[in-house]
Amino acid sequence: MKRINVGIIGLGRAGQMHLHNLMTIPEIHIVQVADVFIEKISTELNDLGITNQTRDYHDILNNPDIDTVFVFTSTDTHEEIVTAAANAGKNIFCEKPLSMNTVEEASVNVLRAVKKNHVKLQMGFNRRMDPQFRNIFENVRQGEIGTPQVVKITSRDPDLLPHDLIQRIGGLLFDFTMHDFDMARYMMNSNIAEVYAKGGTLIDPTLKDINDIDTLALVLQFENGAYGVIDNSRRAVYGYDQRVEVFGSEGMLKAENVSESTVELYTDKSKIMKKPLPMFVQRYRNAYINEMKAFVNSILNDEPVVASGQDVIMAQRAAIAAQKSLETGLPQKVDTNFSLD
Amino acid sequence: MKRINVGIIGLGRAGQMHLHNLMTIPEIHIVQVADVFIEKISTELNDLGITNQTRDYHDILNNPDIDTVFVFTSTDTHEEIVTAAANAGKNIFCEKPLSMNTVEEASVNVLRAVKKNHVKLQMGFNRRMDPQFRNIFENVRQGEIGTPQVVKITSRDPDLLPHDLIQRIGGLLFDFTMHDFDMARYMMNSNIAEVYAKGGTLIDPTLKDINDIDTLALVLQFENGAYGVIDNSRRAVYGYDQRVEVFGSEGMLKAENVSESTVELYTDKSKIMKKPLPMFVQRYRNAYINEMKAFVNSILNDEPVVASGQDVIMAQRAAIAAQKSLETGLPQKVDTNFSLD
Amino acid sequence: MKRINVGIIGLGRAGQMHLHNLMTIPEIHIVQVADVFIEKISTELNDLGITNQTRDYHDILNNPDIDTVFVFTSTDTHEEIVTAAANAGKNIFCEKPLSMNTVEEASVNVLRAVKKNHVKLQMGFNRRMDPQFRNIFENVRQGEIGTPQVVKITSRDPDLLPHDLIQRIGGLLFDFTMHDFDMARYMMNSNIAEVYAKGGTLIDPTLKDINDIDTLALVLQFENGAYGVIDNSRRAVYGYDQRVEVFGSEGMLKAENVSESTVELYTDKSKIMKKPLPMFVQRYRNAYINEMKAFVNSILNDEPVVASGQDVIMAQRAAIAAQKSLETGLPQKVDTNFSLD
Amino acid sequence: MKRINVGIIGLGRAGQMHLHNLMTIPEIHIVQVADVFIEKISTELNDLGITNQTRDYHDILNNPDIDTVFVFTSTDTHEEIVTAAANAGKNIFCEKPLSMNTVEEASVNVLRAVKKNHVKLQMGFNRRMDPQFRNIFENVRQGEIGTPQVVKITSRDPDLLPHDLIQRIGGLLFDFTMHDFDMARYMMNSNIAEVYAKGGTLIDPTLKDINDIDTLALVLQFENGAYGVIDNSRRAVYGYDQRVEVFGSEGMLKAENVSESTVELYTDKSKIMKKPLPMFVQRYRNAYINEMKAFVNSILNDEPVVASGQDVIMAQRAAIAAQKSLETGLPQKVDTNFSLD
Repeated sequence: MKRINVGIIGLGRAGQMHLHNLMTIPEIHIVQVADVFIEKISTELNDLGITNQTRDYHDILNNPDIDTVFVFTSTDTHEEIVTAAANAGKNIFCEKPLSMNTVEEASVNVLRAVKKNHVKLQMGFNRRMDPQFRNIFENVRQGEIGTPQVVKITSRDPDLLPHDLIQRIGGLLFDFTMHDFDMARYMMNSNIAEVYAKGGTLIDPTLKDINDIDTLALVLQFENGAYGVIDNSRRAVYGYDQRVEVFGSEGMLKAENVSESTVELYTDKSKIMKKPLPMFVQRYRNAYINEMKAFVNSILNDEPVVASGQDVIMAQRAAIAAQKSLETGLPQKVDTNFSLD
Repeated sequence: MKRINVGIIGLGRAGQMHLHNLMTIPEIHIVQVADVFIEKISTELNDLGITNQTRDYHDILNNPDIDTVFVFTSTDTHEEIVTAAANAGKNIFCEKPLSMNTVEEASVNVLRAVKKNHVKLQMGFNRRMDPQFRNIFENVRQGEIGTPQVVKITSRDPDLLPHDLIQRIGGLLFDFTMHDFDMARYMMNSNIAEVYAKGGTLIDPTLKDINDIDTLALVLQFENGAYGVIDNSRRAVYGYDQRVEVFGSEGMLKAENVSESTVELYTDKSKIMKKPLPMFVQRYRNAYINEMKAFVNSILNDEPVVASGQDVIMAQRAAIAAQKSLETGLPQKVDTNFSLD
Repeated sequence: MKRINVGIIGLGRAGQMHLHNLMTIPEIHIVQVADVFIEKISTELNDLGITNQTRDYHDILNNPDIDTVFVFTSTDTHEEIVTAAANAGKNIFCEKPLSMNTVEEASVNVLRAVKKNHVKLQMGFNRRMDPQFRNIFENVRQGEIGTPQVVKITSRDPDLLPHDLIQRIGGLLFDFTMHDFDMARYMMNSNIAEVYAKGGTLIDPTLKDINDIDTLALVLQFENGAYGVIDNSRRAVYGYDQRVEVFGSEGMLKAENVSESTVELYTDKSKIMKKPLPMFVQRYRNAYINEMKAFVNSILNDEPVVASGQDVIMAQRAAIAAQKSLETGLPQKVDTNFSLD
Repeated sequence: MKRINVGIIGLGRAGQMHLHNLMTIPEIHIVQVADVFIEKISTELNDLGITNQTRDYHDILNNPDIDTVFVFTSTDTHEEIVTAAANAGKNIFCEKPLSMNTVEEASVNVLRAVKKNHVKLQMGFNRRMDPQFRNIFENVRQGEIGTPQVVKITSRDPDLLPHDLIQRIGGLLFDFTMHDFDMARYMMNSNIAEVYAKGGTLIDPTLKDINDIDTLALVLQFENGAYGVIDNSRRAVYGYDQRVEVFGSEGMLKAENVSESTVELYTDKSKIMKKPLPMFVQRYRNAYINEMKAFVNSILNDEPVVASGQDVIMAQRAAIAAQKSLETGLPQKVDTNFSLD
């Protein structure tokens, strides 16, 4: 069995979740981990058999035994770390987005470094590898529903985030809807060419103070002429609501929510079933593992990654256009051209 | 459009339900109706435009304008009326069973009269024409699941019947399970060759006073070697539970309960749907209409009826064997030979 | 039993469907029917026992035995007939819309006549009385999902209509989406305040010749601040796709498509179920009957109608705004004020 | 975190599956493993970091660092190994059954050794900890369906087993149906008091040569008066069919098959979904992990095990009775008394 030798940068809450997922993949050999607060979790890491620990991510970049890094640090560090990792010749898995800037120049510079150094970069658009959505994707590609005409996404978070977290990771459009933009584009195999967004604060009016919203409805038009509708909410009391539907000339594919329970309780009042899975941790557990496996496969077999830097930039452009649409009340064009040259 | 000219005998609660269903079938022309208490419902019948009313069913048998009679009287009258109707040359639709006797000689005599007079007799095994079960039947016949190996029927009534009604129409086995015996035989296209029954009174112990039970589990073996399992209850608090499943060498077909609602309510506790339809009136509404339409079609196109007198006798034999199995604690063979000669 | 004495005006295809539905409602006594081509269906009507037939609808308006008229004529006659019927003091059921004009003055004049004569007018927004959608409506009103925040409607026709029919009954927005505008407003209990529409011809490019489209995506904002998304298509190969979902602060309600089959076929390849009902005739059969029953109830108990003239005008305004949005590429405000004074 | 120090005995196919599951449980520290063919998998074990390997299971029993052993060897060794492990003072997890004998004396002797040494013994009735079935169990215990009256189990394997494997692990009743007997007893919280079995070879007639069958239907009666129906098949072409239903005085609980896909494909022909999971490995993955976690919890918190030696003996008695019922054609009583004294 061929393996890749891995360094992990960033072991906060998300990083630890990913670490446990990575440990279930036999092809991954974790050589070294880095976190600025590494001492806090040092014992726990030792218990897991991960003894090569450092506070400084440069140690990982300088480690010749490491060929691949996973970057799970906060968004504001992505630009710096990914660029340095590329220049150090490492393959890179990085959570989206590539930069905090709402203009894409910073991201493009990162991609230039990646390209120049001939390393692989995969972005954390985990939903692409969710078994439900991946199955839809594959069926669409195989022509099961003919020509796709409309993609419909409902994406609702189980609850509001703290304001300070929102300010660090981005508001609804850049943290949450960005995944839907990528999903829409992925399903339709076409760039988003125009966005109209309408939204506001139906749940928490104080979100206005930090220039964010909690409820959103969007209409998309794709480069190939097809349409998309997306609706978002920050608080679905019944759990994490994640549904995708693709309608085409020869049929329709849709993925309902996942509950992991098939138990039905029949009473004199009604038929009762379990509600959907509560959070992204459970809902996308397989998606997270699958995206890592796909990245391993891309490296070992020199195949294209499942979600590229360009994919992030295209989703980011849609989010920027949606932001402007919210501000102006008008639909916004999205540039569909992309070149690193 | 060809029509059949109909007389209806028996307009109690069931008869009135059937009357309304018959009025929705264009090919049926209701010429005359009879009921021993006809004066009670005379006005209502007039309102429906049915003015030719009589207390004496012989008037219908003697009416030369009538070619077909529907018999909805109480079970103890079937033997007499069906025999007389056959001798009067009328086609006959009759609710099951043909006679109250638990030995079949009376029923056979009725069938001899039917045969001698070359009239059609269809029995009220309505479930054969239920859209769900008929669809399973057709799929099985078309070979969709290969060779049928096991039929599984769950049949539960919504509530206990009054003891005096049970004494008039028969206990669980002869009133209720009889439908399941017929369904099992219909689905498997093979006679029931052996029955084992185990049951008792888990709901109403006083049923023992009238020699009846409320809960029943059965294992069947068919003439062709296949198996069946049936479970019955008199009280499912969640409604009328009617499910059929056929398992075969190439697949499986099952019909879940019908609720007529696709609405799902998601709350912070669960996902809630409507329970199944509450009673046979709603659940088998289409089945009742369809069995009438099938009978009309049999007459107009001279085709075999959907449920014959022989079908009733075969189901009755299974019920008799099950009764004996309950009494003896032993499985019982069922005679699969039948001939009117 | 109290009854209403009914005249029916217009017995084309839709009218005949409604006639058969009306005949199943005991409180309705059909006194007379009118159609300009009455001789074509005279025999059939006689067979149904409807012998008082006329070519001239004025005969019905002048008939003192008739208190209520059902208008099933083509849209271009609604304005004249409904006004005349109101002036004749008849209660009126009329298919939507009230007038062909895309400005509402003609419709308002009709409503003034209705108001002046103190008669009831119910419009044919049948979906309001569909058992699925009505159940959602009632659950929303009872507060089961808290405050409604987003309504989501998917409405897809099974196939393209002939161009000449479209020209008579209106294009996608005025014939089809109009129902969705009404449904959205009905569910949210709030007027539509703004519409953004994006659409085109992904199925039949020649629709452009008659200024129509076949695919449409919409975002709505309601007067109360809530949002709506609608997507439409003229051709869903899998049947008539009619789904409604209401999301609120305390939960979510959704109605999936209706198939009337609960049969599941399991093979070595997959689990196969029946597709949704194919056409409005089957899908909304109960809705049509229920809206008639609701109208009967409104008259007999002097209660408000289920769908009023004002409801049609509000839906029409949304359609006009959507049309303008398509033409301009910009969202459009919708006037939410309405008064007949 | 408290941990248990574990030795694993037997690393054949099943043992390796369990090993991987055990490695995901943080409270389990694998100290040593034993297999008679350990050299075959030595490298693979080293790769997993499991370097303390032996061919002789006595090394594990003699290892003072080990407090708990997991026995995954073939059935014919269970009696010897479990007895020795109990005498060595180790807690024991063992796959069912405890002995090959169809009389229970050997098993009882094992349990006496367990009792005398005050160690814990948990048997591998994994289905008790399947999330679906455990949820039913808990709902039943909480009284959600009132008094349980009927348990209904459908259990179908995806395909025939090789004859030689059957001869080593036992035929349908002792290898497969035994799980259903345990599930039935677990759900009803009552011992099986009587069994009637009817079965044969509808799939592979050559099974008769090794005195086995492939299709089976059973009726059970429980000590508390309730009833059970079970149907089994060795070959369901659509996957691993595992369903349980409990019907009670106040409602019904049922678990449908698990497919892990919520994707629906609608075509012009039908609605198509994924079939159930194919094999026990996927279907009961969580059940296997959960039963291990439950055992860990029993040890660390000194709580009763989820499935005891007595539970195995009771299921074994039902299987023996069913075997006799098949042979005699008669229902068989099952002894419900049990005591180790």
